[in-house]
Amino acid sequence: MPYPEQFTGFQVNGPETWTEFHKNEFQPKPFGDYDVDVKIEACGVCGSDVHTINGGWGAQNFPLAVGHEIVGKAIRVGSKVTLIKEGQRVGVGAQSYSCLDCRQCNNDNETYCRKQLDTYGAKWPETGIISQGGYSSHVRTHEHWVFPIPEGLNSTDAAPMLCAGLTAYSPLVRNGCGPGKKVGIVGIGGIGHFGVLFAKALGAEVWAISRSHAKEADALKMGADGFIATGDKDWAEPHVMTFDLIINTANSFDGFDLSAYLSLLDVHGRWVSVGLPEGEGIEIRNQDFMKNGCLIGSSHLGSRRETLEMLQLAADKKLQPWIETVPIGANNLSTTLQRLHKNDVHYRFCLTNYGDEFGQ
Amino acid sequence: MPYPEQFTGFQVNGPETWTEFHKNEFQPKPFGDYDVDVKIEACGVCGSDVHTINGGWGAQNFPLAVGHEIVGKAIRVGSKVTLIKEGQRVGVGAQSYSCLDCRQCNNDNETYCRKQLDTYGAKWPETGIISQGGYSSHVRTHEHWVFPIPEGLNSTDAAPMLCAGLTAYSPLVRNGCGPGKKVGIVGIGGIGHFGVLFAKALGAEVWAISRSHAKEADALKMGADGFIATGDKDWAEPHVMTFDLIINTANSFDGFDLSAYLSLLDVHGRWVSVGLPEGEGIEIRNQDFMKNGCLIGSSHLGSRRETLEMLQLAADKKLQPWIETVPIGANNLSTTLQRLHKNDVHYRFCLTNYGDEFGQ
Repeated sequence: MPYPEQFTGFQVNGPETWTEFHKNEFQPKPFGDYDVDVKIEACGVCGSDVHTINGGWGAQNFPLAVGHEIVGKAIRVGSKVTLIKEGQRVGVGAQSYSCLDCRQCNNDNETYCRKQLDTYGAKWPETGIISQGGYSSHVRTHEHWVFPIPEGLNSTDAAPMLCAGLTAYSPLVRNGCGPGKKVGIVGIGGIGHFGVLFAKALGAEVWAISRSHAKEADALKMGADGFIATGDKDWAEPHVMTFDLIINTANSFDGFDLSAYLSLLDVHGRWVSVGLPEGEGIEIRNQDFMKNGCLIGSSHLGSRRETLEMLQLAADKKLQPWIETVPIGANNLSTTLQRLHKNDVHYRFCLTNYGDEFGQ
Repeated sequence: MPYPEQFTGFQVNGPETWTEFHKNEFQPKPFGDYDVDVKIEACGVCGSDVHTINGGWGAQNFPLAVGHEIVGKAIRVGSKVTLIKEGQRVGVGAQSYSCLDCRQCNNDNETYCRKQLDTYGAKWPETGIISQGGYSSHVRTHEHWVFPIPEGLNSTDAAPMLCAGLTAYSPLVRNGCGPGKKVGIVGIGGIGHFGVLFAKALGAEVWAISRSHAKEADALKMGADGFIATGDKDWAEPHVMTFDLIINTANSFDGFDLSAYLSLLDVHGRWVSVGLPEGEGIEIRNQDFMKNGCLIGSSHLGSRRETLEMLQLAADKKLQPWIETVPIGANNLSTTLQRLHKNDVHYRFCLTNYGDEFGQ
């Protein structure tokens, strides 16, 4: 039973077989008055997809189709939908539900709603149906989490912005990134490369911070004003107490000297980590914060308003993300997810050619 | 050779004998044009004093007289002093030097100056003399770190404000404590009790947070609007995502479930630790910060401007710190510091009767 009764997607059966993708039909949640059905055309491949299917983030609901950087066409809109028009090119990111009624939801903080649900792997209340992501033919999403894509932005550039891009963009704008500010981006991967692009587009002085010099040329091409390699001797000293904000996108705490990074921050400067490393945490001491009264924290995605602003900024500034496209399919997914697991990507994969697998 | 050639103080010889105080004469740094000599009348007893002399914070310069919550009379002022008048009742806190010329010093952040020196245990540049604290007859301090005490404030109430009070007050005002804000104070000890007093005086809704209910009655008498005992079952749940700011004054991480505390914070709420526990740190995971995008940090003392504002607020509001006075002397110091080491104080000791030991 193809659409509209059922959707089709590439699912994984469990963490033991996370590199094997099976093309299955599955039941979407019932279509609601505020829902939009999106026929998917492109989907970015996020580190979360790997952490979820390989068990790194713990137990999940299987079988599961991941993918939450989705762009496609709105082919059906519910009777009460006002934000999206049928036929529009739209995106769907990593979040697909919040109550829209609590204090968080009423303050552009719907990403922190206590009832928030993820685009894939979440159990929908009442039906118990497990949400399925964008390695699929379609996605059914409440209009609040469906975003019109501005003209002039390629679908394959826009898709990875809906998780990786937003994850970098939101903490930048929420922590004052702009002209006159010195901003660091730690880790030049999928999220980090968007961090460099957006921090620069927002007008800050941007420094890429990486373990070695391997990505220096790339980072400067992306627009970074400077590059710091933490493998260099006395790397921190020239920059002590000069950064207003550092976004940490590193995906591992191995050999991570947090106190050295924090010494870069100006008084009450902020260190915002947006990666979610698997496994162990990191030890902190109050002493690490005392010399500059700095703050560290984390950030979760961003609001609808920020998503729309980010997409418009990218279109206006003609931002050029570094995207490697891959036609969707069971074999390609296996290869691509394993490459991502080894950080073998410069700097984001995006799945394409959905028509070949799911029909035009 | 008594004053003005030499000062007299109660010194400790090293961490092995930290409970033994010896009355010695010592050489102050040379008197400078901006210096003020203070004849000491009262000095609070700070947890730092214990951490310093018992070796908990590592190697120190001995012999050493500690004490950095000092009130006394300005008996001599340098030729270029404009902020202090001879004969004035003044205070000296935990910091006694910064360059007064850097970006931090020019922005009310002199406590974060990279050249800052402590009131005791610091090596003065050029002379190499080790600074000695307020368990002494006199202290010699640059006028920037000498604060007129408002009339109406007892010396024994004012003295403990100069470290414990300021340590609580500065992060409160720097993080928006005021009407309409819900503020938590973790740990009802010397600093924490000032946290409750000042947060209330600044107009916030104040909750005292402690392990047991032992200090509940005291905290409510201090003005707390509510009390949370973290030993109670499900203690966090009624308060999840409701606090704007929590000041953590706890002096130990033993059994500390940081993620439960952080769950209390509203979106982008802040957790500011002002204690410096001896020994190990605490492990954090980015996941602990993700549900509310909260920030954690630390804070070091406060600026001259904040010190003056704090003292005036205390005088205007007729704040009543809970102080136990102890006449200074070798035996009393030994007993008092050991009681403080066991947290046997409600809620701050202040040394008095300096005339009996050092002359009127």
